[in-house]
Amino acid sequence: MKGSIRISEIFGPTVQGEGPLIGRPTVFVRTGGCDYRCSWCDTLYAVLPEFRGDWTLMTPTAILTEVERLSRSSRVLVSLSGGNPALQPLAPLIEQGRQKGHTFALETQGSVSQPWFAALDWLILSPKPPSSGMATNWQALDDCVAAAKSETQCVVKVAVFDDGDYRYAQLVANRYPALPLYLQVGNPAPLITHAGAGSEEADIDELMRRFRWLVDKVAADGWFTATVLPQLHVLAWGNIRGV
Amino acid sequence: MKGSIRISEIFGPTVQGEGPLIGRPTVFVRTGGCDYRCSWCDTLYAVLPEFRGDWTLMTPTAILTEVERLSRSSRVLVSLSGGNPALQPLAPLIEQGRQKGHTFALETQGSVSQPWFAALDWLILSPKPPSSGMATNWQALDDCVAAAKSETQCVVKVAVFDDGDYRYAQLVANRYPALPLYLQVGNPAPLITHAGAGSEEADIDELMRRFRWLVDKVAADGWFTATVLPQLHVLAWGNIRGV
Repeated sequence: MKGSIRISEIFGPTVQGEGPLIGRPTVFVRTGGCDYRCSWCDTLYAVLPEFRGDWTLMTPTAILTEVERLSRSSRVLVSLSGGNPALQPLAPLIEQGRQKGHTFALETQGSVSQPWFAALDWLILSPKPPSSGMATNWQALDDCVAAAKSETQCVVKVAVFDDGDYRYAQLVANRYPALPLYLQVGNPAPLITHAGAGSEEADIDELMRRFRWLVDKVAADGWFTATVLPQLHVLAWGNIRGV
Repeated sequence: MKGSIRISEIFGPTVQGEGPLIGRPTVFVRTGGCDYRCSWCDTLYAVLPEFRGDWTLMTPTAILTEVERLSRSSRVLVSLSGGNPALQPLAPLIEQGRQKGHTFALETQGSVSQPWFAALDWLILSPKPPSSGMATNWQALDDCVAAAKSETQCVVKVAVFDDGDYRYAQLVANRYPALPLYLQVGNPAPLITHAGAGSEEADIDELMRRFRWLVDKVAADGWFTATVLPQLHVLAWGNIRGV
Protein backbone atom coordinates (compact mmCIF):
# COMPACT_ATOMS: atom_id res chain seq x y z
CA MET A 1 0.00 0.00 0.00
CA LYS A 2 1.32 3.43 -0.87
CA GLY A 3 1.99 5.45 2.26
CA SER A 4 2.05 2.39 4.49
CA ILE A 5 4.54 2.15 7.31
CA ARG A 6 6.54 -0.93 8.19
CA ILE A 7 5.84 -1.63 11.86
CA SER A 8 7.77 -4.01 14.12
CA GLU A 9 5.75 -3.39 17.29
CA ILE A 10 3.46 -0.92 19.04
CA PHE A 11 3.36 -1.12 22.82
CA GLY A 12 2.66 0.83 25.97
CA PRO A 13 1.80 2.90 27.79
CA THR A 14 5.09 2.60 29.63
CA VAL A 15 7.67 5.25 30.43
CA GLN A 16 10.44 6.43 28.14
CA GLY A 17 13.65 4.95 29.51
CA GLU A 18 16.23 7.19 27.87
CA GLY A 19 17.30 10.69 27.03
CA PRO A 20 15.50 13.99 27.50
CA LEU A 21 12.08 12.38 28.02
CA ILE A 22 13.22 9.84 30.62
CA GLY A 23 10.36 8.87 32.90
CA ARG A 24 7.68 10.33 30.61
CA PRO A 25 4.68 8.08 29.90
CA THR A 26 4.63 7.09 26.25
CA VAL A 27 3.43 4.64 23.64
CA PHE A 28 6.20 3.23 21.47
CA VAL A 29 5.77 2.81 17.73
CA ARG A 30 8.74 0.81 16.48
CA THR A 31 9.32 0.63 12.75
CA GLY A 32 11.03 -2.27 11.01
CA GLY A 33 14.16 -1.92 8.90
CA CYS A 34 17.51 -0.22 9.41
CA ASP A 35 20.45 1.00 7.33
CA TYR A 36 22.83 0.27 10.23
CA ARG A 37 24.10 -2.93 11.83
CA CYS A 38 25.44 -1.84 15.21
CA SER A 39 27.52 -4.47 16.97
CA TRP A 40 25.55 -4.05 20.20
CA CYS A 41 22.11 -3.46 18.70
CA ASP A 42 19.46 -4.43 21.24
CA THR A 43 16.55 -4.45 18.78
CA LEU A 44 17.77 -6.70 15.98
CA TYR A 45 14.22 -7.95 15.58
CA ALA A 46 13.43 -4.50 14.16
CA VAL A 47 16.60 -4.37 12.06
CA LEU A 48 17.45 -7.63 10.28
CA PRO A 49 15.61 -8.64 7.10
CA GLU A 50 15.17 -12.15 8.50
CA PHE A 51 12.55 -10.70 10.85
CA ARG A 52 10.69 -9.05 8.00
CA GLY A 53 7.95 -11.64 8.36
CA ASP A 54 7.22 -10.25 11.84
CA TRP A 55 6.71 -6.73 10.53
CA THR A 56 3.35 -5.38 9.40
CA LEU A 57 2.52 -2.74 6.84
CA MET A 58 0.12 -0.32 8.51
CA THR A 59 -1.57 2.88 7.45
CA PRO A 60 -1.20 6.01 9.60
CA THR A 61 -4.86 5.67 10.57
CA ALA A 62 -4.41 2.06 11.68
CA ILE A 63 -1.35 3.01 13.73
CA LEU A 64 -3.20 5.85 15.44
CA THR A 65 -6.13 3.56 16.16
CA GLU A 66 -3.77 1.15 17.92
CA VAL A 67 -2.02 3.98 19.81
CA GLU A 68 -5.37 5.27 21.02
CA ARG A 69 -6.57 1.82 21.97
CA LEU A 70 -3.48 1.57 24.20
CA SER A 71 -3.82 5.10 25.59
CA ARG A 72 -7.59 4.66 25.93
CA SER A 73 -8.03 7.74 23.77
CA SER A 74 -5.96 10.01 25.99
CA ARG A 75 -3.43 12.30 24.41
CA VAL A 76 -0.05 10.71 24.76
CA LEU A 77 3.58 11.06 23.86
CA VAL A 78 4.29 8.78 20.87
CA SER A 79 7.89 7.58 20.69
CA LEU A 80 8.86 6.70 17.13
CA SER A 81 11.74 4.29 17.23
CA GLY A 82 13.25 1.49 15.19
CA GLY A 83 15.21 0.24 13.41
CA ASN A 84 15.62 3.58 11.76
CA PRO A 85 12.22 5.27 11.64
CA ALA A 86 13.61 7.93 9.29
CA LEU A 87 13.38 5.30 6.52
CA GLN A 88 9.57 5.24 6.75
CA PRO A 89 7.06 7.75 5.34
CA LEU A 90 5.98 9.11 8.73
CA ALA A 91 4.81 12.62 7.77
CA PRO A 92 1.08 11.76 7.51
CA LEU A 93 1.16 9.83 10.81
CA ILE A 94 2.74 12.78 12.63
CA GLU A 95 0.39 15.28 11.05
CA GLN A 96 -2.75 13.26 11.85
CA GLY A 97 -1.55 12.43 15.33
CA ARG A 98 -0.70 16.00 16.24
CA GLN A 99 -4.09 17.13 15.02
CA LYS A 100 -5.53 14.76 17.61
CA GLY A 101 -3.37 16.26 20.33
CA HIS A 102 -0.61 13.66 20.56
CA THR A 103 3.05 14.58 20.93
CA PHE A 104 5.74 12.99 18.77
CA ALA A 105 9.35 12.17 19.53
CA LEU A 106 11.53 10.36 17.02
CA GLU A 107 14.89 8.75 17.63
CA THR A 108 17.24 8.04 14.78
CA GLN A 109 20.97 7.63 14.25
CA GLY A 110 20.90 10.61 11.89
CA SER A 111 21.99 8.81 8.74
CA VAL A 112 18.91 9.86 6.75
CA SER A 113 17.35 13.31 6.95
CA GLN A 114 13.70 14.00 6.24
CA PRO A 115 11.95 17.35 5.77
CA TRP A 116 9.14 16.17 8.04
CA PHE A 117 11.54 16.15 11.03
CA ALA A 118 10.34 19.78 11.32
CA ALA A 119 6.86 18.50 12.26
CA LEU A 120 8.12 16.57 15.29
CA ASP A 121 7.96 17.82 18.86
CA TRP A 122 11.25 16.09 19.66
CA LEU A 123 14.06 14.89 17.42
CA ILE A 124 16.58 12.75 19.26
CA LEU A 125 19.64 12.22 17.13
CA SER A 126 21.68 9.29 18.31
CA PRO A 127 24.80 9.02 16.14
CA LYS A 128 26.62 5.76 16.73
CA PRO A 129 30.07 5.79 18.37
CA PRO A 130 33.07 3.70 17.24
CA SER A 131 32.17 0.68 19.39
CA SER A 132 29.09 0.16 17.20
CA GLY A 133 31.31 -0.62 14.23
CA MET A 134 29.47 1.99 12.18
CA ALA A 135 30.96 5.12 10.59
CA THR A 136 29.16 8.46 10.96
CA ASN A 137 28.08 10.34 7.86
CA TRP A 138 28.59 13.82 9.22
CA GLN A 139 26.95 15.54 6.29
CA ALA A 140 23.79 13.48 6.81
CA LEU A 141 23.85 14.29 10.53
CA ASP A 142 24.26 17.99 9.75
CA ASP A 143 21.24 17.72 7.43
CA CYS A 144 19.17 16.14 10.21
CA VAL A 145 20.05 18.95 12.61
CA ALA A 146 19.18 21.52 9.94
CA ALA A 147 15.86 19.80 9.20
CA ALA A 148 14.63 20.20 12.76
CA LYS A 149 13.75 23.93 12.58
CA SER A 150 12.85 25.99 15.60
CA GLU A 151 9.64 24.29 16.73
CA THR A 152 11.28 20.91 17.14
CA GLN A 153 13.37 20.28 20.21
CA CYS A 154 16.51 18.68 18.82
CA VAL A 155 18.96 16.90 21.10
CA VAL A 156 21.87 14.52 20.66
CA LYS A 157 22.28 11.25 22.53
CA VAL A 158 25.42 9.13 22.39
CA ALA A 159 25.80 5.65 23.85
CA VAL A 160 29.17 5.33 25.58
CA PHE A 161 30.76 1.92 26.09
CA ASP A 162 34.44 2.93 26.31
CA ASP A 163 36.98 5.74 26.10
CA GLY A 164 36.81 5.83 22.31
CA ASP A 165 33.06 6.36 22.46
CA TYR A 166 33.55 9.09 25.05
CA ARG A 167 35.99 10.94 22.78
CA TYR A 168 33.51 10.57 19.92
CA ALA A 169 30.78 12.11 22.11
CA GLN A 170 33.10 15.06 22.77
CA LEU A 171 33.54 15.51 19.02
CA VAL A 172 29.78 15.50 18.59
CA ALA A 173 29.38 18.07 21.37
CA ASN A 174 31.96 20.33 19.73
CA ARG A 175 30.25 20.04 16.36
CA TYR A 176 26.79 20.93 17.73
CA PRO A 177 27.40 23.23 20.71
CA ALA A 178 23.83 24.53 20.64
CA LEU A 179 22.25 21.10 21.09
CA PRO A 180 21.69 19.52 24.51
CA LEU A 181 23.79 16.35 24.69
CA TYR A 182 22.95 13.15 26.57
CA LEU A 183 25.54 10.50 27.36
CA GLN A 184 23.90 7.12 27.72
CA VAL A 185 25.52 4.28 29.59
CA GLY A 186 26.24 1.51 27.11
CA ASN A 187 24.41 -1.74 27.84
CA PRO A 188 26.60 -4.76 27.10
CA ALA A 189 23.57 -7.05 27.21
CA PRO A 190 23.53 -10.30 25.33
CA LEU A 191 21.57 -9.76 22.16
CA ILE A 192 17.96 -10.75 22.04
CA THR A 193 17.43 -12.09 18.57
CA HIS A 194 13.81 -12.96 19.05
CA ALA A 195 11.01 -12.20 21.46
CA GLY A 196 11.55 -14.08 24.65
CA ALA A 197 14.98 -15.31 23.64
CA GLY A 198 18.33 -14.22 25.04
CA SER A 199 19.34 -13.36 28.54
CA GLU A 200 16.66 -11.14 29.99
CA GLU A 201 18.29 -10.48 33.34
CA ALA A 202 20.11 -7.15 33.28
CA ASP A 203 23.39 -6.91 35.18
CA ILE A 204 22.44 -3.86 37.20
CA ASP A 205 25.68 -3.81 39.18
CA GLU A 206 27.64 -3.66 35.94
CA LEU A 207 25.38 -0.99 34.44
CA MET A 208 25.71 1.13 37.58
CA ARG A 209 29.48 0.63 37.59
CA ARG A 210 29.54 1.96 34.03
CA PHE A 211 27.28 4.85 35.05
CA ARG A 212 29.64 5.84 37.87
CA TRP A 213 32.60 5.57 35.50
CA LEU A 214 30.91 7.95 33.09
CA VAL A 215 29.92 10.40 35.83
CA ASP A 216 33.52 10.38 37.09
CA LYS A 217 34.86 11.15 33.60
CA VAL A 218 32.44 14.01 33.02
CA ALA A 219 33.20 15.43 36.47
CA ALA A 220 36.96 15.10 36.00
CA ASP A 221 36.78 16.84 32.63
CA GLY A 222 34.47 19.59 33.87
CA TRP A 223 32.07 18.65 31.08
CA PHE A 224 29.06 20.13 32.84
CA THR A 225 26.86 20.66 29.79
CA ALA A 226 26.42 16.93 29.21
CA THR A 227 23.67 14.92 30.90
CA VAL A 228 24.54 11.38 32.00
CA LEU A 229 21.80 8.78 32.16
CA PRO A 230 21.39 5.01 32.24
CA GLN A 231 18.63 3.16 30.42
CA LEU A 232 15.93 3.22 33.05
CA HIS A 233 13.78 0.51 31.43
CA VAL A 234 16.70 -1.92 31.51
CA LEU A 235 17.19 -1.27 35.23
CA ALA A 236 13.48 -1.75 35.88
CA TRP A 237 12.55 -4.58 33.56
CA GLY A 238 15.78 -6.11 32.26
CA ASN A 239 16.52 -6.78 28.62
CA ILE A 240 13.04 -7.61 27.48
CA ARG A 241 10.71 -6.38 24.79
CA GLY A 242 7.48 -4.51 25.22
CA VAL A 243 8.28 -2.38 28.27
CA MET B 1 27.55 37.40 60.67
CA LYS B 2 24.72 39.22 58.99
CA GLY B 3 23.88 37.66 55.63
CA SER B 4 25.66 34.42 56.44
CA ILE B 5 24.21 31.13 55.32
CA ARG B 6 24.03 28.01 57.45
CA ILE B 7 25.72 25.27 55.44
CA SER B 8 25.59 21.55 56.13
CA GLU B 9 27.75 20.45 53.20
CA ILE B 10 29.02 21.43 49.78
CA PHE B 11 30.02 18.62 47.45
CA GLY B 12 30.43 17.61 43.84
CA PRO B 13 30.65 17.70 40.97
CA THR B 14 28.32 14.76 40.71
CA VAL B 15 25.05 14.40 38.81
CA GLN B 16 21.64 15.44 40.00
CA GLY B 17 19.80 12.26 40.89
CA GLU B 18 16.21 13.47 40.87
CA GLY B 19 13.54 15.43 39.08
CA PRO B 20 13.74 17.56 35.96
CA LEU B 21 17.54 17.87 36.08
CA ILE B 22 18.23 14.17 36.51
CA GLY B 23 21.66 13.26 35.14
CA ARG B 24 22.83 16.88 34.98
CA PRO B 25 26.29 17.56 36.43
CA THR B 26 26.01 19.74 39.49
CA VAL B 27 27.59 20.93 42.71
CA PHE B 28 25.34 20.57 45.75
CA VAL B 29 25.08 23.29 48.38
CA ARG B 30 23.12 21.87 51.28
CA THR B 31 21.89 24.23 53.95
CA GLY B 32 21.32 23.27 57.58
CA GLY B 33 17.98 23.61 59.34
CA CYS B 34 14.41 22.63 58.50
CA ASP B 35 10.88 23.48 59.56
CA TYR B 36 9.75 19.91 58.73
CA ARG B 37 10.40 16.54 60.33
CA CYS B 38 9.48 14.03 57.64
CA SER B 39 9.21 10.46 58.88
CA TRP B 40 11.42 9.17 56.07
CA CYS B 41 13.84 12.10 55.86
CA ASP B 42 17.13 10.91 54.36
CA THR B 43 19.14 13.98 55.36
CA LEU B 44 18.47 14.35 59.07
CA TYR B 45 22.05 15.56 59.49
CA ALA B 46 20.89 18.74 57.71
CA VAL B 47 17.63 18.95 59.65
CA LEU B 48 17.96 18.18 63.35
CA PRO B 49 19.33 20.82 65.76
CA GLU B 50 21.57 18.17 67.34
CA PHE B 51 23.70 18.34 64.17
CA ARG B 52 24.00 22.12 64.41
CA GLY B 53 27.60 21.74 65.50
CA ASP B 54 28.37 20.24 62.09
CA TRP B 55 26.96 23.22 60.25
CA THR B 56 29.03 26.24 59.24
CA LEU B 57 28.03 29.85 58.77
CA MET B 58 29.42 30.94 55.41
CA THR B 59 29.23 34.12 53.38
CA PRO B 60 27.99 33.98 49.78
CA THR B 61 31.53 34.71 48.61
CA ALA B 62 32.97 31.85 50.65
CA ILE B 63 30.32 29.47 49.28
CA LEU B 64 31.05 30.49 45.70
CA THR B 65 34.77 30.09 46.30
CA GLU B 66 34.15 26.52 47.41
CA VAL B 67 31.78 25.81 44.50
CA GLU B 68 34.39 27.08 42.06
CA ARG B 69 37.17 25.12 43.72
CA LEU B 70 35.08 22.00 43.13
CA SER B 71 34.10 22.97 39.57
CA ARG B 72 37.63 24.14 38.86
CA SER B 73 36.21 27.52 37.91
CA SER B 74 33.86 26.14 35.25
CA ARG B 75 30.31 27.37 35.13
CA VAL B 76 28.16 24.79 36.79
CA LEU B 77 24.62 24.02 37.91
CA VAL B 78 24.40 24.72 41.65
CA SER B 79 21.75 22.63 43.42
CA LEU B 80 20.53 24.36 46.57
CA SER B 81 19.13 21.77 48.91
CA GLY B 82 18.63 21.14 52.60
CA GLY B 83 17.10 20.93 55.08
CA ASN B 84 14.89 23.70 53.79
CA PRO B 85 17.07 26.16 51.87
CA ALA B 86 14.18 28.65 51.75
CA LEU B 87 14.94 29.41 55.41
CA GLN B 88 18.33 30.89 54.48
CA PRO B 89 19.10 34.34 53.02
CA LEU B 90 20.18 33.03 49.60
CA ALA B 91 19.43 36.07 47.40
CA PRO B 92 23.00 37.47 47.40
CA LEU B 93 24.49 34.02 46.70
CA ILE B 94 22.20 33.49 43.71
CA GLU B 95 22.82 36.99 42.39
CA GLN B 96 26.61 36.75 42.68
CA GLY B 97 26.67 33.24 41.30
CA ARG B 98 24.53 34.02 38.27
CA GLN B 99 26.73 37.03 37.51
CA LYS B 100 29.61 34.54 37.27
CA GLY B 101 27.61 32.35 34.88
CA HIS B 102 26.42 29.63 37.21
CA THR B 103 22.91 28.21 37.10
CA PHE B 104 20.81 27.79 40.24
CA ALA B 105 18.21 25.20 41.12
CA LEU B 106 16.56 25.14 44.52
CA GLU B 107 14.49 22.37 46.03
CA THR B 108 12.13 23.06 48.91
CA GLN B 109 8.97 21.59 50.37
CA GLY B 110 7.21 24.89 49.67
CA SER B 111 6.37 25.79 53.26
CA VAL B 112 8.16 29.14 53.10
CA SER B 113 8.03 31.46 50.11
CA GLN B 114 10.74 33.96 49.27
CA PRO B 115 10.69 36.81 46.76
CA TRP B 116 14.15 35.77 45.57
CA PHE B 117 12.70 32.53 44.14
CA ALA B 118 12.21 34.71 41.05
CA ALA B 119 16.00 34.91 40.64
CA LEU B 120 16.40 31.13 40.36
CA ASP B 121 16.75 29.23 37.10
CA TRP B 122 14.82 26.29 38.56
CA LEU B 123 12.44 26.07 41.50
CA ILE B 124 11.60 22.49 42.43
CA LEU B 125 8.70 22.42 44.84
CA SER B 126 8.48 19.16 46.68
CA PRO B 127 5.42 19.21 48.94
CA LYS B 128 5.41 16.29 51.35
CA PRO B 129 2.74 13.59 51.00
CA PRO B 130 0.82 12.00 53.90
CA SER B 131 3.40 9.26 54.54
CA SER B 132 5.85 11.97 55.65
CA GLY B 133 3.62 12.76 58.63
CA MET B 134 3.62 16.44 57.66
CA ALA B 135 0.60 18.57 56.70
CA THR B 136 0.76 20.78 53.63
CA ASN B 137 0.22 24.52 54.02
CA TRP B 138 -1.49 25.09 50.67
CA GLN B 139 -1.44 28.86 50.95
CA ALA B 140 2.33 28.82 51.45
CA LEU B 141 2.72 26.48 48.49
CA ASP B 142 0.56 28.77 46.33
CA ASP B 143 2.80 31.65 47.40
CA CYS B 144 5.90 29.73 46.32
CA VAL B 145 4.40 29.02 42.90
CA ALA B 146 3.45 32.69 42.54
CA ALA B 147 6.95 33.82 43.58
CA ALA B 148 8.61 31.97 40.73
CA LYS B 149 7.69 34.41 37.90
CA SER B 150 8.19 33.64 34.26
CA GLU B 151 11.98 33.37 34.08
CA THR B 152 12.13 30.60 36.66
CA GLN B 153 11.24 27.08 35.59
CA CYS B 154 8.94 25.91 38.33
CA VAL B 155 8.08 22.22 38.70
CA VAL B 156 6.50 20.04 41.35
CA LYS B 157 8.00 16.80 42.63
CA VAL B 158 6.17 14.42 44.96
CA ALA B 159 7.69 11.37 46.65
CA VAL B 160 5.26 8.45 46.48
CA PHE B 161 5.50 5.62 49.00
CA ASP B 162 1.92 4.34 48.91
CA ASP B 163 -1.60 4.82 47.55
CA GLY B 164 -2.29 7.74 49.88
CA ASP B 165 0.77 9.56 48.58
CA TYR B 166 -0.33 8.85 45.02
CA ARG B 167 -3.75 10.39 45.63
CA TYR B 168 -2.03 13.39 47.22
CA ALA B 169 0.12 13.77 44.10
CA GLN B 170 -3.05 13.78 42.01
CA LEU B 171 -4.45 16.59 44.20
CA VAL B 172 -1.26 18.56 43.67
CA ALA B 173 -1.45 18.01 39.90
CA ASN B 174 -5.05 19.24 39.85
CA ARG B 175 -4.16 22.33 41.87
CA TYR B 176 -1.25 23.30 39.60
CA PRO B 177 -2.15 22.02 36.13
CA ALA B 178 0.35 24.33 34.44
CA LEU B 179 3.34 22.94 36.34
CA PRO B 180 5.26 19.86 35.16
CA LEU B 181 4.89 17.17 37.82
CA TYR B 182 7.44 14.52 38.79
CA LEU B 183 6.53 11.42 40.76
CA GLN B 184 9.53 10.13 42.67
CA VAL B 185 9.78 6.59 43.89
CA GLY B 186 9.85 6.66 47.69
CA ASN B 187 13.03 5.28 49.19
CA PRO B 188 12.31 3.28 52.35
CA ALA B 189 15.98 3.33 53.31
CA PRO B 190 17.04 3.03 56.89
CA LEU B 191 17.87 6.50 58.12
CA ILE B 192 21.42 7.66 58.15
CA THR B 193 21.74 9.76 61.24
CA HIS B 194 25.39 10.57 60.80
CA ALA B 195 28.02 10.41 58.09
CA GLY B 196 29.07 6.84 57.59
CA ALA B 197 26.39 5.45 59.87
CA GLY B 198 23.27 3.54 58.89
CA SER B 199 22.73 1.01 56.18
CA GLU B 200 24.40 2.29 53.06
CA GLU B 201 23.41 -0.53 50.76
CA ALA B 202 20.32 0.39 48.73
CA ASP B 203 17.78 -2.34 48.04
CA ILE B 204 17.69 -1.82 44.29
CA ASP B 205 15.28 -4.69 43.68
CA GLU B 206 12.82 -3.11 46.08
CA LEU B 207 13.27 0.36 44.58
CA MET B 208 12.72 -0.98 41.07
CA ARG B 209 9.68 -2.93 42.24
CA ARG B 210 8.26 0.35 43.58
CA PHE B 211 9.15 2.09 40.33
CA ARG B 212 7.27 -0.52 38.28
CA TRP B 213 4.31 -0.22 40.64
CA LEU B 214 4.22 3.53 40.10
CA VAL B 215 4.56 3.21 36.30
CA ASP B 216 1.72 0.68 36.30
CA LYS B 217 -0.54 3.04 38.28
CA VAL B 218 0.17 6.01 36.03
CA ALA B 219 -0.37 3.87 32.91
CA ALA B 220 -3.61 2.39 34.27
CA ASP B 221 -4.94 5.86 35.12
CA GLY B 222 -3.89 7.38 31.82
CA TRP B 223 -1.97 10.01 33.77
CA PHE B 224 0.37 10.82 30.92
CA THR B 225 1.40 14.30 32.03
CA ALA B 226 3.32 13.00 35.05
CA THR B 227 6.95 11.95 34.85
CA VAL B 228 7.99 8.92 36.91
CA LEU B 229 11.57 8.68 38.13
CA PRO B 230 13.60 6.85 40.75
CA GLN B 231 16.45 8.46 42.69
CA LEU B 232 19.34 7.75 40.37
CA HIS B 233 22.05 8.51 42.94
CA VAL B 234 20.60 5.90 45.30
CA LEU B 235 20.69 3.28 42.53
CA ALA B 236 24.27 4.20 41.67
CA TRP B 237 25.83 4.86 45.03
CA GLY B 238 23.43 3.61 47.70
CA ASN B 239 22.30 5.61 50.70
CA ILE B 240 25.46 7.57 51.31
CA ARG B 241 26.38 11.21 51.64
CA GLY B 242 28.46 13.28 49.29
CA VAL B 243 27.44 11.78 45.95
